[in-house]
Amino acid sequence: MTLAADSIRIDNMQPLRKLDFYFDYISHNAYLAWTQLAPLAHRYGLEIVRIPVLFGALLQAHGGLGPAEIPAKSLWMIRDVLRKARMLGVPLAPPATHPFNPLLPLRVTCLPLPGADQGRVISSLYEAAWAHGRDISSANVVAAMLDEIGLDGARLVDEAAGDGAKARLRANTDAALASGVFGVPTMIVDDQLFWGYDDWPNLERYLRGEDPLTADDLEPWMQVRPGIQRKRR
Amino acid sequence: MTLAADSIRIDNMQPLRKLDFYFDYISHNAYLAWTQLAPLAHRYGLEIVRIPVLFGALLQAHGGLGPAEIPAKSLWMIRDVLRKARMLGVPLAPPATHPFNPLLPLRVTCLPLPGADQGRVISSLYEAAWAHGRDISSANVVAAMLDEIGLDGARLVDEAAGDGAKARLRANTDAALASGVFGVPTMIVDDQLFWGYDDWPNLERYLRGEDPLTADDLEPWMQVRPGIQRKRR
Repeated sequence: MTLAADSIRIDNMQPLRKLDFYFDYISHNAYLAWTQLAPLAHRYGLEIVRIPVLFGALLQAHGGLGPAEIPAKSLWMIRDVLRKARMLGVPLAPPATHPFNPLLPLRVTCLPLPGADQGRVISSLYEAAWAHGRDISSANVVAAMLDEIGLDGARLVDEAAGDGAKARLRANTDAALASGVFGVPTMIVDDQLFWGYDDWPNLERYLRGEDPLTADDLEPWMQVRPGIQRKRR
Repeated sequence: MTLAADSIRIDNMQPLRKLDFYFDYISHNAYLAWTQLAPLAHRYGLEIVRIPVLFGALLQAHGGLGPAEIPAKSLWMIRDVLRKARMLGVPLAPPATHPFNPLLPLRVTCLPLPGADQGRVISSLYEAAWAHGRDISSANVVAAMLDEIGLDGARLVDEAAGDGAKARLRANTDAALASGVFGVPTMIVDDQLFWGYDDWPNLERYLRGEDPLTADDLEPWMQVRPGIQRKRR
């Protein structure tokens, strides 16, 4: 199975529309979204810009909790994601651990690889974590997995520990925050932010030019002010 | 427009299936779900059990933040909810304030009213807040609104300040927490918890007997353990 979401270029067409895809391997919803990106790019003539970000840093910045940090929500979410995977026909198996430390796979993805290789790396990492139950926080696992797709695993894992990859991931995450990203997966087209695989129908309507919303619709909502502030423990 | 979600009883049918509906007026998604409950009850022969709960207390208990407390998410959510309302043809207008204090309307809803009256009260409160921009945290507004639907507004607002209504709301919220409820709207049928209006397609598939999940599917996921714990500020 190939899930690579390379941008699709067709001669004699107008420039491709750009879709920024913010993701972290820690998110099964981002995995589901990733599996649907290539068909989306085909259907709508999109250039997919893949932006690995550290979800934990988004949570930290916004002050929220991840779904895995709220046990009742986590239980609901497993059911929800399994249902979506079944409906999509996407393989989904329990990960080795969850949440897991996604820094190494994210940094590997930040290395300056050719686009097609980066796409294969992302697909392989997502499938390793979410279809094959492999522990992608482990350097040995990631190196072996990279070897399996014909790359030099040991070298890439080594490079991922360097300052370049670290700085790139930090810069991606900061840029995401500056663009209003609060979770993963996030898809930004034009100035429109779509969040989660659940937002896919809205994203597709927008790409088809059938979004029921205009900026004018939003304006009065921007004037709404809090009438109460919750006391937090 | 009538949105009352009274249970539908048809003679010579098997006992109605029970759907517990947990809601708070503070949630526009719960408003959207409420508008879709009556047709759902018709389609699937459901008895809707309406359970007003204090969303803020659920957040407090689980340690999360509400979407209105994360500005970037709040902005996304307004767009998302407006899109859904448009697709459903449900009127949605900016509330007077948001978040607002929902205690009074929740406690009014907890009063021992006949079922049909309770349904009309809920519809009126939701429409007042989310279709007409009225401030339902205000006793004057709520009393006037109740008068408009032929009830004794002053008396009900008075009763809502009594210990009975307060205790009922607290008991509802505690029972919700015990049932694994972490947000609103929540719909529970049998032992299946569905969260948010976004979960409606899964709920409908479940009601049609077409849920792609079984308890066996979930079991291996229950064994997954954290591989990392996020340091929180």
